[in-house]
Amino acid sequence: MSDPVLGVPGSVVAQAPDGLPEVREGDDLLDLLDHVLPLADLVDGDVLVVTSKVVSKAEGRVVAGTREELLAGETARVVARRGPTTIVRTHHGLTMAAAGIDGSNVRAGHAVLLPRDPDASAARLRAGLARRTGRSVGVVVSDTAGRAWREGQTDIAVGAAGIVPLVSFAGRRDAHGNELAVTAPAVADEVAGLAELASGKLGGRPVTLVRGLAHLVLPLGEDGAGAAALVRPDGGDLFGYGAREAVLRALTADPADQRAFGSPVSREELLGALGRVGVSALPEGEHEVVAPDSPAVRAVVFAHGWEPVPGSASDAGLRWRAPTP
Amino acid sequence: MSDPVLGVPGSVVAQAPDGLPEVREGDDLLDLLDHVLPLADLVDGDVLVVTSKVVSKAEGRVVAGTREELLAGETARVVARRGPTTIVRTHHGLTMAAAGIDGSNVRAGHAVLLPRDPDASAARLRAGLARRTGRSVGVVVSDTAGRAWREGQTDIAVGAAGIVPLVSFAGRRDAHGNELAVTAPAVADEVAGLAELASGKLGGRPVTLVRGLAHLVLPLGEDGAGAAALVRPDGGDLFGYGAREAVLRALTADPADQRAFGSPVSREELLGALGRVGVSALPEGEHEVVAPDSPAVRAVVFAHGWEPVPGSASDAGLRWRAPTP
Repeated sequence: MSDPVLGVPGSVVAQAPDGLPEVREGDDLLDLLDHVLPLADLVDGDVLVVTSKVVSKAEGRVVAGTREELLAGETARVVARRGPTTIVRTHHGLTMAAAGIDGSNVRAGHAVLLPRDPDASAARLRAGLARRTGRSVGVVVSDTAGRAWREGQTDIAVGAAGIVPLVSFAGRRDAHGNELAVTAPAVADEVAGLAELASGKLGGRPVTLVRGLAHLVLPLGEDGAGAAALVRPDGGDLFGYGAREAVLRALTADPADQRAFGSPVSREELLGALGRVGVSALPEGEHEVVAPDSPAVRAVVFAHGWEPVPGSASDAGLRWRAPTP
Repeated sequence: MSDPVLGVPGSVVAQAPDGLPEVREGDDLLDLLDHVLPLADLVDGDVLVVTSKVVSKAEGRVVAGTREELLAGETARVVARRGPTTIVRTHHGLTMAAAGIDGSNVRAGHAVLLPRDPDASAARLRAGLARRTGRSVGVVVSDTAGRAWREGQTDIAVGAAGIVPLVSFAGRRDAHGNELAVTAPAVADEVAGLAELASGKLGGRPVTLVRGLAHLVLPLGEDGAGAAALVRPDGGDLFGYGAREAVLRALTADPADQRAFGSPVSREELLGALGRVGVSALPEGEHEVVAPDSPAVRAVVFAHGWEPVPGSASDAGLRWRAPTP
């Protein structure tokens, strides 16, 4: 693989061909694609972006039912609700409205579920391209997702194979010598967004060829970390619940849901948070805190990832312990 | 303006030229750019993406201080904290770590603030391009931002002029007749991401020319809604606080911060939420609810956007009223 940073060529081209026929279960996407984008034209380092919709259709993920009826089966946990909108974390770890179930561009009374394993779908397409062309072509499976804080949606990578999903600059320095430790461009997501620009939403162009990113494409035989590397682990995110849902969860504490508040904080951070609800907690060893029992204290401690010690109630309150990692 | 949906051409090219010199306060970016990307080559419908970094440098937004020292001045409110990371909503409405203050690619002891009004910066560049070339060129001012739920960052549009920021499909139907009401691709963000792909982070390529999106570019004399249209209004977002911060805010209720929980819900939704903390509230007119007073109830009602009625304490509890819109 060429250097993912210094090999940037400065020029990127995306083309979304017209004329791909309607995709049906069992179809070989590469056969269909060959008619509108001759596979023989592909070169090493090309990237093919395919919408999850056509991948799902080929894989038989079109099912009868409404999005509402199908939602529970696709949901690992509910993140936030508002009116008709339900944002969930899917079994893949994706946080999406209606679990990414899509009722558009499908026959009435049916909906399209996301591929079961979009990274595996991408890897199969990449292997098929290698078999037919001998070329190393990166593959991104894209879907449309809303964002926190910003209007509208962008396309993101829900699956990827043979392309670096995230370029790490850890340890690198800019021209002034400043470290770029936390900078990690999510290039696979940006590639999916580029394909959305080239293809549009109504144009019936579910496949986009991107050229000029060979520095991000892995050699034949390597699929890389996939789009799974773009999913922040549950417990590693500050926004695991909508703001309102967080309040309700903390007050109706179900330990199974606690991870969505993120990993447990240090004793100092917990004491600081308790101080904001008027509690001077009694430190009791490095991983334990005793605090007077009240709904507010329980909610704060719960949201900070600590667990009550069974049978620890005393005059001083409840004892809470940092979970063993 | 050509049809923003049906005019999609299927092909997009981005080029980030090398060789732009270091930008200093007072520099005319278009003068500098003309040496590496001749402005005479621009055509109607081109889009120029410029990093906020060089816009800020030209506008004199390089200031002495660390990100920590400068943060308060750039912050409208704190959204979430974790260890060394502080995510805030800026005065522009952008939700970004460290308010988008950038300590990289700047001399030691200094940092770069975001442009004061990035849409106005974009409009000035667009006007300058029109004056010099007679062409309608869309302008995007880009910056790098983290996301909820996903690892890494993508570049987004913090400023825009002469380009549609968000394509609305409201009222349009797909080939099967299904309505695409809520689909609204944030194309200006995707354009910023494309420029990041073409330019890379360390390459010193702060300007990218994008061609093939003329259907998104407005006629001369129209700047459009700008990137401000991509900012979800405070009170319109489900993720106005990190999950932990939401719990603390609700328990230490400061009415000025309430909007970050989103707009007030209906009485039915509030009653449902109160039911989850074991309260059968007494309905009392369409916009009022009486509920027994407790920290848990106060936190839930607060997070749902209702306000206590002063002096309303009775044996039945406190009276809460939906704010008048």
